[in-house]
Amino acid sequence: MYFTYEQPEFDKNDPGEIRRVIREAYENGREAAFLGRVADYIPELAKADGGDFGICVKNMAGDNISFGETEKRFSIQSISKVINLAASLKFLGFRETFSHVKMEPSGDAFNSILKLDLASDLPYNPMINAGAIQVMSMLSNFMDFDDLISFAKAFCMDDSIVLNEEVYCSERDTGDRNRAIAYLLRSKGVLQGDPDKTLDLYFRMCSLNVNAESLANMSLLIANNGTNPFTGKHVIHPGYIRTIRSLMYTCGLYDESGEYGVLVGIPSKSGVGGGITASVKDRCGIGTYGPALNEKGNSAGGIAALQHISHLLQLNSFC
Amino acid sequence: MYFTYEQPEFDKNDPGEIRRVIREAYENGREAAFLGRVADYIPELAKADGGDFGICVKNMAGDNISFGETEKRFSIQSISKVINLAASLKFLGFRETFSHVKMEPSGDAFNSILKLDLASDLPYNPMINAGAIQVMSMLSNFMDFDDLISFAKAFCMDDSIVLNEEVYCSERDTGDRNRAIAYLLRSKGVLQGDPDKTLDLYFRMCSLNVNAESLANMSLLIANNGTNPFTGKHVIHPGYIRTIRSLMYTCGLYDESGEYGVLVGIPSKSGVGGGITASVKDRCGIGTYGPALNEKGNSAGGIAALQHISHLLQLNSFC
Amino acid sequence: MYFTYEQPEFDKNDPGEIRRVIREAYENGREAAFLGRVADYIPELAKADGGDFGICVKNMAGDNISFGETEKRFSIQSISKVINLAASLKFLGFRETFSHVKMEPSGDAFNSILKLDLASDLPYNPMINAGAIQVMSMLSNFMDFDDLISFAKAFCMDDSIVLNEEVYCSERDTGDRNRAIAYLLRSKGVLQGDPDKTLDLYFRMCSLNVNAESLANMSLLIANNGTNPFTGKHVIHPGYIRTIRSLMYTCGLYDESGEYGVLVGIPSKSGVGGGITASVKDRCGIGTYGPALNEKGNSAGGIAALQHISHLLQLNSFC
Amino acid sequence: MYFTYEQPEFDKNDPGEIRRVIREAYENGREAAFLGRVADYIPELAKADGGDFGICVKNMAGDNISFGETEKRFSIQSISKVINLAASLKFLGFRETFSHVKMEPSGDAFNSILKLDLASDLPYNPMINAGAIQVMSMLSNFMDFDDLISFAKAFCMDDSIVLNEEVYCSERDTGDRNRAIAYLLRSKGVLQGDPDKTLDLYFRMCSLNVNAESLANMSLLIANNGTNPFTGKHVIHPGYIRTIRSLMYTCGLYDESGEYGVLVGIPSKSGVGGGITASVKDRCGIGTYGPALNEKGNSAGGIAALQHISHLLQLNSFC
Repeated sequence: MYFTYEQPEFDKNDPGEIRRVIREAYENGREAAFLGRVADYIPELAKADGGDFGICVKNMAGDNISFGETEKRFSIQSISKVINLAASLKFLGFRETFSHVKMEPSGDAFNSILKLDLASDLPYNPMINAGAIQVMSMLSNFMDFDDLISFAKAFCMDDSIVLNEEVYCSERDTGDRNRAIAYLLRSKGVLQGDPDKTLDLYFRMCSLNVNAESLANMSLLIANNGTNPFTGKHVIHPGYIRTIRSLMYTCGLYDESGEYGVLVGIPSKSGVGGGITASVKDRCGIGTYGPALNEKGNSAGGIAALQHISHLLQLNSFC
Repeated sequence: MYFTYEQPEFDKNDPGEIRRVIREAYENGREAAFLGRVADYIPELAKADGGDFGICVKNMAGDNISFGETEKRFSIQSISKVINLAASLKFLGFRETFSHVKMEPSGDAFNSILKLDLASDLPYNPMINAGAIQVMSMLSNFMDFDDLISFAKAFCMDDSIVLNEEVYCSERDTGDRNRAIAYLLRSKGVLQGDPDKTLDLYFRMCSLNVNAESLANMSLLIANNGTNPFTGKHVIHPGYIRTIRSLMYTCGLYDESGEYGVLVGIPSKSGVGGGITASVKDRCGIGTYGPALNEKGNSAGGIAALQHISHLLQLNSFC
Repeated sequence: MYFTYEQPEFDKNDPGEIRRVIREAYENGREAAFLGRVADYIPELAKADGGDFGICVKNMAGDNISFGETEKRFSIQSISKVINLAASLKFLGFRETFSHVKMEPSGDAFNSILKLDLASDLPYNPMINAGAIQVMSMLSNFMDFDDLISFAKAFCMDDSIVLNEEVYCSERDTGDRNRAIAYLLRSKGVLQGDPDKTLDLYFRMCSLNVNAESLANMSLLIANNGTNPFTGKHVIHPGYIRTIRSLMYTCGLYDESGEYGVLVGIPSKSGVGGGITASVKDRCGIGTYGPALNEKGNSAGGIAALQHISHLLQLNSFC
Repeated sequence: MYFTYEQPEFDKNDPGEIRRVIREAYENGREAAFLGRVADYIPELAKADGGDFGICVKNMAGDNISFGETEKRFSIQSISKVINLAASLKFLGFRETFSHVKMEPSGDAFNSILKLDLASDLPYNPMINAGAIQVMSMLSNFMDFDDLISFAKAFCMDDSIVLNEEVYCSERDTGDRNRAIAYLLRSKGVLQGDPDKTLDLYFRMCSLNVNAESLANMSLLIANNGTNPFTGKHVIHPGYIRTIRSLMYTCGLYDESGEYGVLVGIPSKSGVGGGITASVKDRCGIGTYGPALNEKGNSAGGIAALQHISHLLQLNSFC
């Protein structure tokens, strides 16, 4: 952790300096990756190389600073929850979406069933499995996977996104905890769609093949208030973006969200595939890939790199 | 809730317009107060007038726009947790402070014991009772109440802050749940000071008499990176301020923090005495007083007013 | 409750006296039924008549003392858990059975998921839904419904037991919480069979049509150490019977088991269909039917009648 | 575990045979003790010798069969909960006692706070810490320690019982979790006496010095329906005994009660000092001492010995 709060002397407008900081962040991330561990609860994920690390930073002007494994494809996993939420806000609206899912950080692990049984019929937020399944149950009534992947491509400004069939099969075959969540939600009368169709779409969206560049793009679009800066296409209304950013901030890194907020302070979302997407309002989008995870399920390398970059480039939302 | 995301035409630099918006916020808050209910779990709190409402907005230039009950004194209650945290950061540092308390939103009520028994020996964050008691146990080893109230006066830029003796006695006499928390923390070997002394200081700090102006001042100091804008005195190092802001954002309104983040989006802290303090970086500090609370224990009027003001003056951290 | 511990003068060997006590118990039960409420979480159950009440007491000599609705058929519901456990002990043995389910009262409601998520991968005991589903997953690998219903007929000494198709369909269509439990068990790697087949058998066994006489028979067989007293057929080895009795005692009435143990003190099992079976070692079997349930999900009339009969005929295991 | 249910050929009326079985039980217990571990959460308890083991069996005729360390004194710990409950039943009655504590096994560890925070304001049963503290809060209003120790001496038929001062000081100095429980109960408005006085008496009763003989005596008195078989003195009304027996059965061995019921099947109570008392209605009282505990906090040697003796002498309540 950065326990010093002293900012180094640094010219934020010097492209060479920025590039140097991002390279340092890359090196920090690659080092930190060795302390993490590749996820193995889904067989396909266990095939990743724990030593891989890459970082990609993009701005509205089209500058792209990348180091390491930024083109390698991996499964998006929980980062798809941001896409699902965006689709729900765009197509169903704020009021309908949040009639069926809350907006509170849960303090529990991403796949916890506890609060559902104890505290609330509605899932705590769209960034945990229960909430994302709930969101997908709403979408499942009028969108199919073709619609969703089209939206994902636009949201990530990446036409190369495809379903990773192996990951999808692995997800589907080992998704019993998510099935338990879906049936528990239906037993409480809150699930909004058919459980099988909902889960199938949920598993498919978790299995989208992205790379660090796609994740930088996604965050760049969010940083640009929902508009593709290169084509000018409005993908999602700017009014919904603040909701997405706020929930990424409070709930984006599972039960490490609070600490990440203090140490990094950028609205972000992580996935157990090893990705993190981090969106700096009006400035840039950042994507990292590092499949070695820390004990909270977040990319060890990604966090180290983002902490460095946030500190030196002063990207913290609250500093 | 503001379900429209359309921003009205509005000149942010027109002082008359700003004043008009704050008056509307005051009127909204006063209306919403009638839907809330005065806290009664401490006898002294039950004496408040649920119809009271006031709002005070201050900026670095010394402008002060106030409507309603902004000078009436009431007990600071949980807002003192921000002062305790600030004192701990200033006098003990980041590393020592967060060796003994975590930084995660808990998803539970402010006085919950659940997570302590289930999930973690360390309290989840300094903004819930367990975490604030833990912070106070550290401070209790080298600060007495005189030291703490002096720091509180500086932090709130308000020399008139005194202990409300009636509230303090009421807190002390009915503080069994907090005693249970302190003893549970000690049984786990994590409490850092004597439980009696810790609780006495904790109860005293909850019983400080403030008003909406003091709360606006506190947030103005935070907005000004820890420096009193009028005297130039550095009360707390700017490096600690981002930690305070981030934890106010993720944990400041109990288990309504996530929703408040989406709807208001300003780092804030509430207390069951009816106060809310909200800090807009580089711009202003806002204090509200409305003792009628919603079901989460947050000021009903305060939230309504802050939502209006955040929306129209575009103070949301993420919009 | 019987707060007097004075035993009335009473000749336990006088058949007329015994008959009188059972009639009183019937009358108490019929009264108490009016305080209960018919289960409605499954549509078919809601069709029962809350005013119905019947009691049947049978001994090894073939004496049968019955009052009220003792021939009316209703669904066995959770009482089938005793049959499932007996089948598992008989066909798989003690060691195998309790390698996959614990023997502890849970302190939670019958359909709770809490402990599974918090405290233990194995279900707490075979008398709650999670434990009974787990037991059925073992049986499902080598028994089909024909085998199970044959065993149930022998265990209840009742050849008229059939599947209630309406209840079965109702169970199956509304069994999402049980599905959630089965998938959660499989996600933890403890479920021993296919979830769909397991649940289908579980729902079918809950839907067996019994009456108060069948339940008296079942308990009579248990009271007679597993042997049909009329045919001499050994249905289950006496060695397994003490395990069944002990688990009925500690876990048989959901989270009312402890109080029932104190007030009635007979190994028993209840079902939300309104039945209770109670087995008095070496003496008799008792079956009651009263679909109006108390707030714990146990037959209000059944408990009142059994408390009376236990007190006056001194059937308490521990008095 | 005894997975065979076959009873050996055995003449229950042959005193030599009985003595032989008890000696075998002693040897089993001594062996099993080596698998356990002495409690260390209270410094004084950690001084015990984990290899110690003793068993004492007494009947109404005054026969006493003892092997091993049956005269060594140790602290009674949780077994005092039976004495506290007996005193409450005797002096306050059933109705008053159970207005303030429930009768349900909790499924949680002996010192759990969980259910108090989650599920119920009243403690689950008098055999866990929360319930015993609650019972003591009632007694504290009209009994002092002299009264309680006098009752304990009569209940254990042992005039040599004294307070172990070292254990008492150790309990008092490390009793923070129990303090937390007491304050939590008072915060819910259910504690019936002063917390300090209640806890002092509770700690003192846990610190009574007993030996395996005292524990055999206590169970003999319970087996004899509350009357001292040697003096004929009625210590507690027989009507209360069935309540004590039933709660010992369902709740006496913490969260191992259910399994112990199946495998041993004798109403019993254990303490972390290493004692177990087991009461066989109308037959005998058994006391064991073995401070090496299993992972549930119950004497490893005691359970092994009692399982053997119950099996071979057919003392199981339900076989």
